[in-house]
Amino acid sequence: MKRLALMLLASAAPAAAQQAAPAARSRTAPPAVAVDPKVAALRDKALGDDVAYAITEGLTTEIGQRGTGGSDAQARARDWGVAKLKALGFRNVRIETYTLPDVWQRGVETAEVVAPYPQVLRLTALGNSGATPATGLTAPIVYFASLGDLMAMPDGSLTGRIAFVSNAMQPTQDGSSYGSSGAARFVGPNIAAKKGAAAIVIRSIGTDHGRGPHAGTTNFDAGVTPIPAAALSVADAENLERMVKLGKPVSLKLTLTPRLIGPRQSGNVIAEVPGTDKDAGIVLVGGHLDSWELGTGAIDDASGLGITTAAAKLVMDAGRPRRTIRVVWFGDEEIGGFGGQEYAKAHAGERHASASESDFGADRVWRVETALPDSARGVGDRLAAALAPLGIVRGSGVGGDGTDIGPVIRTGVAGIDLNQSGLRYFDVHHTPEDTLDRVDPEQLRQNVAAWTTMLAIVANAPEDIGPVARQP
Amino acid sequence: MKRLALMLLASAAPAAAQQAAPAARSRTAPPAVAVDPKVAALRDKALGDDVAYAITEGLTTEIGQRGTGGSDAQARARDWGVAKLKALGFRNVRIETYTLPDVWQRGVETAEVVAPYPQVLRLTALGNSGATPATGLTAPIVYFASLGDLMAMPDGSLTGRIAFVSNAMQPTQDGSSYGSSGAARFVGPNIAAKKGAAAIVIRSIGTDHGRGPHAGTTNFDAGVTPIPAAALSVADAENLERMVKLGKPVSLKLTLTPRLIGPRQSGNVIAEVPGTDKDAGIVLVGGHLDSWELGTGAIDDASGLGITTAAAKLVMDAGRPRRTIRVVWFGDEEIGGFGGQEYAKAHAGERHASASESDFGADRVWRVETALPDSARGVGDRLAAALAPLGIVRGSGVGGDGTDIGPVIRTGVAGIDLNQSGLRYFDVHHTPEDTLDRVDPEQLRQNVAAWTTMLAIVANAPEDIGPVARQP
Repeated sequence: MKRLALMLLASAAPAAAQQAAPAARSRTAPPAVAVDPKVAALRDKALGDDVAYAITEGLTTEIGQRGTGGSDAQARARDWGVAKLKALGFRNVRIETYTLPDVWQRGVETAEVVAPYPQVLRLTALGNSGATPATGLTAPIVYFASLGDLMAMPDGSLTGRIAFVSNAMQPTQDGSSYGSSGAARFVGPNIAAKKGAAAIVIRSIGTDHGRGPHAGTTNFDAGVTPIPAAALSVADAENLERMVKLGKPVSLKLTLTPRLIGPRQSGNVIAEVPGTDKDAGIVLVGGHLDSWELGTGAIDDASGLGITTAAAKLVMDAGRPRRTIRVVWFGDEEIGGFGGQEYAKAHAGERHASASESDFGADRVWRVETALPDSARGVGDRLAAALAPLGIVRGSGVGGDGTDIGPVIRTGVAGIDLNQSGLRYFDVHHTPEDTLDRVDPEQLRQNVAAWTTMLAIVANAPEDIGPVARQP
Repeated sequence: MKRLALMLLASAAPAAAQQAAPAARSRTAPPAVAVDPKVAALRDKALGDDVAYAITEGLTTEIGQRGTGGSDAQARARDWGVAKLKALGFRNVRIETYTLPDVWQRGVETAEVVAPYPQVLRLTALGNSGATPATGLTAPIVYFASLGDLMAMPDGSLTGRIAFVSNAMQPTQDGSSYGSSGAARFVGPNIAAKKGAAAIVIRSIGTDHGRGPHAGTTNFDAGVTPIPAAALSVADAENLERMVKLGKPVSLKLTLTPRLIGPRQSGNVIAEVPGTDKDAGIVLVGGHLDSWELGTGAIDDASGLGITTAAAKLVMDAGRPRRTIRVVWFGDEEIGGFGGQEYAKAHAGERHASASESDFGADRVWRVETALPDSARGVGDRLAAALAPLGIVRGSGVGGDGTDIGPVIRTGVAGIDLNQSGLRYFDVHHTPEDTLDRVDPEQLRQNVAAWTTMLAIVANAPEDIGPVARQP
């Protein structure tokens, strides 16, 4: 899940174009739209689904950590996926390979307070971090309560220091706090490097108080030499803050030895439910197969694969849809969205009717948002009506969010988002704690029901679903 | 906290002698006992205490991990304690040193599934574990759902195998599930070694589902060579169980390199509130200063030091008590209760009126249990009456529980236990997650109020508090 990172960093990201009054404040009655009884029946059947859990359990148990960046485990996971998707009855199941140019790989990662309160701290290197010497780097820290405080420092003022940015994150249902708090990770290291810092540690971008640090990528501008950059667990960051507040200078020793290991082969796994109308466009759904290697990637994103695959299977088993449904298990999302970029390149010549991804955990879907052309406005109304019994509200934002579908969406394809609740997501996001037990089977089934409903409506919509104009 | 371990292992442990009908089922009215207004006022003042939190915060921040077994950090913590206790106004503040004969020290600890589902698992060596070769030990596992299943195996049947005992623990308010589930740790390795196992891994003795393994000691019989013995995190044990249930043989590679490092100096920190009556006996209270090194030992047991010290200070500040109150910050509890044993040896010639320890976290005290001589029966009644407004029930078991006070208690000293709720305790007990944020300041203050009440009553009791007869 890196949507808000991208929104912050990429000018090509979709803007909130069609803003209206928030739905929650509207007192007008929704349009009276009948729900197709076949859709309703399929939705309710999906509430008994076990396929999504089986995929989530299988990937986290039989494969485990699926290291981002072309790992061997990802290759095993692709083979596992091909076998699973074929066994479920999908057509055109295949791996589409691609080459990652120069892969960043985690190394040793340790930290300790050297003075005045010697003790070990827990952290993890951020993706694209530079390395310390193998024997470590010891330096005094400079504390910043927020990224803004770091940004206010004069250039060169941090020479020989380790910047410590410790902004705290609060949970939000829509995940928007990831954008505001996450900036410390997304751009903090680049800013610290420009100001001369020897290294940077941040408080993990997470809503827990645990010892498992939250991994994630950062990015340095071209021409900026990457400095060592790591996330302390929230508990360790809180401890370090308390030390700072005692008033004595605090020095840290960091040992981070990530390195670039050259090109690696990787790939996307693709499966289809062939439609009857080749000209109606593909309905693209999926999630990502790779994970950060600290956990087993249950909520990020085995469950997303489970949800979208289970929904596609339910629609497939109900009869051939009008549009082809294409399920993609994208590779190497975490380290830079490579699978999605490669998919868009490889399939640039095909017509996509819509694109949707599930990459925000496995808690219940609470909102649907769309970006549909005027010709398909009725699709959105039918979606809202059919999803309402699942407790899903219609949002007023613009659909089409996600790192993997982003490159397709940006070509003008319609987007439909089924937003999971983010209230627990950042407790374990990118941590060692992202394991199967975090997935609530009942909430997972609600997800499958929402996605099944969406696919049944969109893949069979009689309207043309053409390009969407987006604000630049 | 190792009480139930000791109850299981040591025949000298106090038996449940004075069992009566559980208080909860009794419909008889409690004795009408007036609460001394001075005691009530002190109890209510204690609900505003900040000293306990300051000690807990200080130890976890300025010292951090206080490695059990004569570590340098423990030495720093003793010096910190002496300064703190003097600053609080205690008298006779001192360190009483002792020598640990041959200290067990944690080394490398890694594990991976080699086949059929290669992936990294998280574990920690149990105290007194043997070592694998430095290059690791690879062997097939044999799964046991319970310790009983392991015990049923014929001798020699586990040669060349790694035993995997995976019993699950449920939370209990009184912590009794630690005794039943904990046996897998306390005696499982010894049993597996006798049956020829190359090593043993257990599911952590904990009530969470996290990735932080739960440390703790195990013990091998004289003549049994220690085998490598480790606790998988609960999430990893659950994952390994799922692999086992898929039916293929599972092999693990373990690398555990703990070693014995010879004798080490360590010590207890002692402080006193001198009483007016030298012959009335010492009221002994305290907790332990060392911690497992995975966390910072906030609930185990910095908070116990904070609670007992804060209570002693409140009573001290209210005027000199009849009996001397002695606060002991015991050393090296976790690795074998050495501080408590050394204290009992060093103070064998002194009269103790009572002994109590706080070593079960910082959640609210829910029960008081006593073992008092008949001559001091009124003390128990007054305690029950004065503690009731704090929501504390009078239990029907025998007081005097705890590793550190055990050696004193077993000489016939009266025991008074203020039992904290164990419902959350084993979520983080002995894990990396035992950090300051787990301490709820409000519940901590309720503890201080309970201990203040107890000390005010017991230290000033006009009755003689003489020896207690205990069942062998």
